[in-house]
Amino acid sequence: MSHFDLVIRNARCATASDVFDADIGILDGRIHTLGQSIAPGRREIDAGGRWVLPGGIDSHVHVDQRQTTGGLTADTFSTGSIAAACGGTTTMIPFATQLRGQSLRWAMEEYHERSRGKTAIDYNFHLIVGDPTAEALAKELPDVIADGCTSLKFFTVYDDVMLSDREVLNAMAAARSEGAMVMIHCENADGIDWMTEKLIDRGLHAPKYHPAARPAIMEHEAIYRMTAFAELTGVPLMIVHVSSGGSMQLIEAARRRGVTVYAEACPQYIALDSTDLDKPGMEGAKALCSPPPRWPGNDTAIWQGIEDGFFDVFSSDHSPYRFDSSGKFPHGSDVPFNRISSGVPGVETRSPILFSEGVSKGRIDINRFVALNSTNAAKIYGIYPRKGTIAVGSDADLCIWDDQYETIIDVALLHHAVEYTPYQGMVVKGWPAVTLSRGEVVAEYHSFCGRLDHGRYVRAEKRHPKGTATPTAIELAKLGVQLSV
Amino acid sequence: MSHFDLVIRNARCATASDVFDADIGILDGRIHTLGQSIAPGRREIDAGGRWVLPGGIDSHVHVDQRQTTGGLTADTFSTGSIAAACGGTTTMIPFATQLRGQSLRWAMEEYHERSRGKTAIDYNFHLIVGDPTAEALAKELPDVIADGCTSLKFFTVYDDVMLSDREVLNAMAAARSEGAMVMIHCENADGIDWMTEKLIDRGLHAPKYHPAARPAIMEHEAIYRMTAFAELTGVPLMIVHVSSGGSMQLIEAARRRGVTVYAEACPQYIALDSTDLDKPGMEGAKALCSPPPRWPGNDTAIWQGIEDGFFDVFSSDHSPYRFDSSGKFPHGSDVPFNRISSGVPGVETRSPILFSEGVSKGRIDINRFVALNSTNAAKIYGIYPRKGTIAVGSDADLCIWDDQYETIIDVALLHHAVEYTPYQGMVVKGWPAVTLSRGEVVAEYHSFCGRLDHGRYVRAEKRHPKGTATPTAIELAKLGVQLSV
Amino acid sequence: MSHFDLVIRNARCATASDVFDADIGILDGRIHTLGQSIAPGRREIDAGGRWVLPGGIDSHVHVDQRQTTGGLTADTFSTGSIAAACGGTTTMIPFATQLRGQSLRWAMEEYHERSRGKTAIDYNFHLIVGDPTAEALAKELPDVIADGCTSLKFFTVYDDVMLSDREVLNAMAAARSEGAMVMIHCENADGIDWMTEKLIDRGLHAPKYHPAARPAIMEHEAIYRMTAFAELTGVPLMIVHVSSGGSMQLIEAARRRGVTVYAEACPQYIALDSTDLDKPGMEGAKALCSPPPRWPGNDTAIWQGIEDGFFDVFSSDHSPYRFDSSGKFPHGSDVPFNRISSGVPGVETRSPILFSEGVSKGRIDINRFVALNSTNAAKIYGIYPRKGTIAVGSDADLCIWDDQYETIIDVALLHHAVEYTPYQGMVVKGWPAVTLSRGEVVAEYHSFCGRLDHGRYVRAEKRHPKGTATPTAIELAKLGVQLSV
Amino acid sequence: MSHFDLVIRNARCATASDVFDADIGILDGRIHTLGQSIAPGRREIDAGGRWVLPGGIDSHVHVDQRQTTGGLTADTFSTGSIAAACGGTTTMIPFATQLRGQSLRWAMEEYHERSRGKTAIDYNFHLIVGDPTAEALAKELPDVIADGCTSLKFFTVYDDVMLSDREVLNAMAAARSEGAMVMIHCENADGIDWMTEKLIDRGLHAPKYHPAARPAIMEHEAIYRMTAFAELTGVPLMIVHVSSGGSMQLIEAARRRGVTVYAEACPQYIALDSTDLDKPGMEGAKALCSPPPRWPGNDTAIWQGIEDGFFDVFSSDHSPYRFDSSGKFPHGSDVPFNRISSGVPGVETRSPILFSEGVSKGRIDINRFVALNSTNAAKIYGIYPRKGTIAVGSDADLCIWDDQYETIIDVALLHHAVEYTPYQGMVVKGWPAVTLSRGEVVAEYHSFCGRLDHGRYVRAEKRHPKGTATPTAIELAKLGVQLSV
Repeated sequence: MSHFDLVIRNARCATASDVFDADIGILDGRIHTLGQSIAPGRREIDAGGRWVLPGGIDSHVHVDQRQTTGGLTADTFSTGSIAAACGGTTTMIPFATQLRGQSLRWAMEEYHERSRGKTAIDYNFHLIVGDPTAEALAKELPDVIADGCTSLKFFTVYDDVMLSDREVLNAMAAARSEGAMVMIHCENADGIDWMTEKLIDRGLHAPKYHPAARPAIMEHEAIYRMTAFAELTGVPLMIVHVSSGGSMQLIEAARRRGVTVYAEACPQYIALDSTDLDKPGMEGAKALCSPPPRWPGNDTAIWQGIEDGFFDVFSSDHSPYRFDSSGKFPHGSDVPFNRISSGVPGVETRSPILFSEGVSKGRIDINRFVALNSTNAAKIYGIYPRKGTIAVGSDADLCIWDDQYETIIDVALLHHAVEYTPYQGMVVKGWPAVTLSRGEVVAEYHSFCGRLDHGRYVRAEKRHPKGTATPTAIELAKLGVQLSV
Repeated sequence: MSHFDLVIRNARCATASDVFDADIGILDGRIHTLGQSIAPGRREIDAGGRWVLPGGIDSHVHVDQRQTTGGLTADTFSTGSIAAACGGTTTMIPFATQLRGQSLRWAMEEYHERSRGKTAIDYNFHLIVGDPTAEALAKELPDVIADGCTSLKFFTVYDDVMLSDREVLNAMAAARSEGAMVMIHCENADGIDWMTEKLIDRGLHAPKYHPAARPAIMEHEAIYRMTAFAELTGVPLMIVHVSSGGSMQLIEAARRRGVTVYAEACPQYIALDSTDLDKPGMEGAKALCSPPPRWPGNDTAIWQGIEDGFFDVFSSDHSPYRFDSSGKFPHGSDVPFNRISSGVPGVETRSPILFSEGVSKGRIDINRFVALNSTNAAKIYGIYPRKGTIAVGSDADLCIWDDQYETIIDVALLHHAVEYTPYQGMVVKGWPAVTLSRGEVVAEYHSFCGRLDHGRYVRAEKRHPKGTATPTAIELAKLGVQLSV
Repeated sequence: MSHFDLVIRNARCATASDVFDADIGILDGRIHTLGQSIAPGRREIDAGGRWVLPGGIDSHVHVDQRQTTGGLTADTFSTGSIAAACGGTTTMIPFATQLRGQSLRWAMEEYHERSRGKTAIDYNFHLIVGDPTAEALAKELPDVIADGCTSLKFFTVYDDVMLSDREVLNAMAAARSEGAMVMIHCENADGIDWMTEKLIDRGLHAPKYHPAARPAIMEHEAIYRMTAFAELTGVPLMIVHVSSGGSMQLIEAARRRGVTVYAEACPQYIALDSTDLDKPGMEGAKALCSPPPRWPGNDTAIWQGIEDGFFDVFSSDHSPYRFDSSGKFPHGSDVPFNRISSGVPGVETRSPILFSEGVSKGRIDINRFVALNSTNAAKIYGIYPRKGTIAVGSDADLCIWDDQYETIIDVALLHHAVEYTPYQGMVVKGWPAVTLSRGEVVAEYHSFCGRLDHGRYVRAEKRHPKGTATPTAIELAKLGVQLSV
Repeated sequence: MSHFDLVIRNARCATASDVFDADIGILDGRIHTLGQSIAPGRREIDAGGRWVLPGGIDSHVHVDQRQTTGGLTADTFSTGSIAAACGGTTTMIPFATQLRGQSLRWAMEEYHERSRGKTAIDYNFHLIVGDPTAEALAKELPDVIADGCTSLKFFTVYDDVMLSDREVLNAMAAARSEGAMVMIHCENADGIDWMTEKLIDRGLHAPKYHPAARPAIMEHEAIYRMTAFAELTGVPLMIVHVSSGGSMQLIEAARRRGVTVYAEACPQYIALDSTDLDKPGMEGAKALCSPPPRWPGNDTAIWQGIEDGFFDVFSSDHSPYRFDSSGKFPHGSDVPFNRISSGVPGVETRSPILFSEGVSKGRIDINRFVALNSTNAAKIYGIYPRKGTIAVGSDADLCIWDDQYETIIDVALLHHAVEYTPYQGMVVKGWPAVTLSRGEVVAEYHSFCGRLDHGRYVRAEKRHPKGTATPTAIELAKLGVQLSV
């Protein structure tokens, strides 16, 4: 047999379920052979018994977007993907955004344009649906999905993208018909506005009041509402950035009712809390995101869910606002919390934080890490088995982890386009030593060594979840009604 | 000592907690003395050892209203109160209604006008708030409450009265500030509209599809949302016409979080079910109300809640539409289910149904009956101890029950202004033999013998519930925020 | 009409559901008349608008017993009943005890002998069943019940009274057949022994290790087991001295399954906690009881259950051991925690603590206080309506409460026969000013003024709970099995 | 490179998380290489694109045991392992049994003797601990574990093996100290005896009363008790043959408390129900096992748990009693249900039933099948990664599945030593076409083609679960107590 393009020797491999020692033979960007003492490669890397894991998949990333709160995400596809690669991420799924009045088709074309040839790692899109007209749902959505973008995102907050209940129902039904799935940012807009006014009326303007304005119960409310609509329409749901134990209970209850509900955890709800917003001046704004980091101790519930399999994916919700008028402070720096852009950067630190806090500290085993960091996202978003695992035939998107490497997170070592990280000073143990995308080394420790024209758009498969016998469906059936929504 | 106006001898009295044998001495319309062998009265009635119970309080009654679905409630205060009296009810709490564009003050004045001198039994009002402008809440609401109307009702459905989330929050906060409480009709409007369109598009027009269009999960959704808002604002809540076990679980969960949530049961959710809507022609429309009667067997959960104290009150939601174009069919009689007026009559049958199905069948004891039929409503709506019990000083609103009297419910024997009852043919055991309002006999069995100028408006007290330490309040407190809403 | 023996004027009366202002006319030891300006009495007491409440019923009291841990309860029926009276209690239900080898009949006769003519207030017995032989259950139990002792108590711990699972089942089935009910002390004996050995082996001997040896999970275990047996046998159950929120959840779950389970709260689980056992020397032994007071903060759950109606009764579990070798220290004073007699005195402080912590501090209303302090116990244990309420025909067992009286609990003011109280130094607001048993004043504030030959044995009625459709019964019915146990 | 011993070409492989197409190169009984177009083998098998899955692991098998109910398991290690192989199982974990009075060491030696050289597939033992004397736990247990038997099994029923609560605690603590885990048969012995007597006293003798005598609540009780003890001792637990949804809820609750509790599903709780016991004569005895198959419809909960990951393993609890006096009827054939040997055969049908009902019917995906059928048992019982997966370095225990093969289960095609199967007549789709143990073909479809001296004892690793912060541990810690049990 001919030589491999690359052989990684002495790899201690882990998948979402297995651990094995093997050499990895890579040919044409794919994993060709896993075995003991395999044939030589034109290039060889000796992993030296270190962990070789599937490259990370960050399935919640904002780049090259102007957000509704006014801020511009500083990262382009180029800078964002370089940062991702240096953090061990080999696939990212940012958003294409349809605002009110725009077409879905335009959104897709625009984001293909913004990304094509300018991205260091492979990527797919989620489509933010901000104006689900009957026209858009009937005529444009099928094309979007045929183009390989099979996950839609809805918002229940933020003026220029939020959908009414009726729009959510229409768009969910269309997604279900087309075999797409739906991600939702869940918070109750009116409740938050009301709380915000109450606080601002009382002169409580500092960043630390941001969590007070968006209490957990307002996240719970929207989660209950959206899972109820998913029960009506039968569409599979991903609740993004779940921030509290109460939210988890509602998701669990919906699952027990037979609704397909996935859940996303994020670093900001285990590594930050509300006290991070309570710092002098505007320093607290560095941890200002929505839903907000909750009270100290809230991370216990999130960790429980990470450990026991409640959470399906661990994503960054990377929202890279510069700490100036272009990003965090579009309305000036002396404004109440509700006029500050909401979001924190994190695409590069996501995997190391989960590895360090999870694996190095003994909270989760390596299989759970792989599942959360990579495999589950690939499966849920339709790019598995090409992405998300170490198996014969899969893309050679791999990370050699140095699990003994200790470092202090420092923005000076990060590659995103913003000048801070909310995790500044955090000690982590474990870092990606070598990151490969389709068999090519794209990063070593903190150094990018790939190419910006390397990344390709990966088409996602449609998901075709089986119909679920929810209580509503059963009730309808008793009345002889079978809705094919 | 002077003679009593009336003495009821040999009464087997029951309150919400006690049972005792006594003579009841009545003076000036009030209970003056309870004792053995008390002094004679100018008139005497021998109860002969039968149950003498507090007169019923029907706290959910629609009379003299033009409803939003177009139908006119056929009962006036006169006919409605006569029917109530003949069913053993001595106090009713119908609605004064503010529609969009109307003032609260107008609503109150109008309903005083409609009722004054034309009502056979005592009454209070709940105020339907259909347009909670800042002006109305700030300037008119205090007057309404000072006038003794301390319970407000909000709708989450029905175009001309439904409130947005933001309006609900504003109105709840105002209610809390004024010491009022809030009742809510909980269903999700958009979800129901969406389901309705789906059904009608498929040609599923018959009354039996009404339950399919308003599935329980859409009631649950609104209950979750409203209890979440009550958690924010701290206002005490009554969820009216709870129709399913899932709704009960959400109310229970809110109570455990520290939210004050009362719950109302109605006869239509124990004595009717979805099969009652599945009858030839428009016959099913006689059981069409919202939320709809649920699937057969659903009453098990409702009964469990009636028995174990989950439910606080048992009301009729009396909605007396004639079975013609004035009532049930304002848009014609050959229309889809959603154009039929929603609601069933029941003010006269409410207490007998609960007595027969509950007490006579051994499901509940007499104390629970009294609590649900009378005492709890008086307490919750601020007219206790004047109404709702048998105690020294309370109004002599009393019912002598004939617990051996068996009858078949027949519209021919009822006094409401509509030509049908959904309970036609139901066998009941137990009926009010003599009903007294402030010491005057107003009904004997099926005969009204009172006067239409007898009933008086009873002012309700403000409720002042203590502040509750909800999770939201605790979270806010940790951030140093104390909202006095 | 003839004069009353006694009239209490200007009473602000409360029952478990009502509040009313009345004069109370008492004749032959019973409440004859409640009214305004009633006829004069031979004696009159002016309550001056103060609360007049049903006298307390302490349904869990140990007097004149030699307990299994070796200690002798110092209080006789005389001293115990005097203490009770001074704390506003007018009925107590202590135990008649059958140990291994004794007959039930002997136990009843013995305790009648110990109490007759020596008790200041009325009383009934619970029968501790320590040896449920077939003979005892078949032949003696019916006589015991016919004698008016209708509640049996079982232990799952303590060598000389604990029953095996099989004995529990046999005795429950017999109780059910005879219409009696069952109270159970729930802790897992083997688990506690195992933990105790582990602690003592490590030299952890101090009283503060008593809670460690009896962790809440061992209480939960026994509660689950006993409610499961009640589900099999259909007997109504009272779980005594529920000490933790986890226990409450299991009881709630059993109730939802259809099992009749009552719950008892005690002062030691709201006014004491595990830190009270952590004091120098043997001081901690003053708070040593079983189940132990739990960790600080545990009282939150207990209070929630007191407020929301979860708990049915509030009893003292009065266990009056002198702080010497006769009581607390039968095995010497320098012994490990497991050789110290377990139990605390509390018959006199029970009602004032609930009134002060509950009513005066605004946690519960006066009706809930009456229900917990008196009415519910009377109903559950079969002595209602003779005891437990203020109603025509009931015994004139009444308490005039001075709700403004503030005092510091001090053993010097108490009447029990032990030289300490675990509540020493606790400030309470509210104390019984005048206590009447069958119309006779037996105590005023801290002074006893009754007679030791006043108290009478009150026969309890059999309870006849309806059969309950537990899941087990339903499962059996599906198999055609109808056990009449 | 040298030739492989065997190459399986065109395999559609699945692990517990992945699916991939590969050739499998096997050398020295292990998987050496996974790849595309790998080097030739001395032998080759073309899988033709069919599923190649890890060989099954049946972790609950009774062979060569005389059971406590008197019956002898007809299968020896030889017949049992042949049957297993023909059903696609490549590893079985039967029991070594210590009865009262026997030593642990004897039990191990005896079962090594019974199995060595007579077993067709690899195996490990669980050790039934029937007499946990201090001596046995301290001196013998470490040797047993060093011998590679790291899972102990306890019974709460069956006279000659059941342990008292205290014995359970002692044995759990010893297991924890030694790094072993514990499996428990959970039913309440006294409750079952009591019910049994009640039924038999009423002449209800037929097999159909077996479920009535062992109601689900008696399983729940024992599960609650055993998980409580696991909470005390910190030992990881496997609840075997979980038969009802109520049991699942208790296990879930224990997991939420932080207790490590695994759960086992069995075919008899999805493919049988209580109606299978209700057949003429003794026919129902063919489905008689403990816990009993529950009511029709109960399988819904079990399936939910199989689908959503609640269950960890799917085992047969193979209990092969001949339908004569040697097995099912040691006390004669005309006896009440409680004298019939309890248990059903199933080692050969286990995997096909799960594949057919699960995978072929679309309830579970192939990864879940692999996890339940193989991988999880290997991990939990300490024989992973040697067993339980398809990965480089693992034993070549493989099954080529013919997922289109439809057959009717017929005892004539099975290899166990009993003359019936409770699944007679069941249609299954999917059967193991070729089964390989360490690279050797041991079965093809229904034909055994291996050797009885092939199977080897596989030593299990100790499990070292991290200590868990259960509520009890937290409570103890607050008191300064750190038990290293």
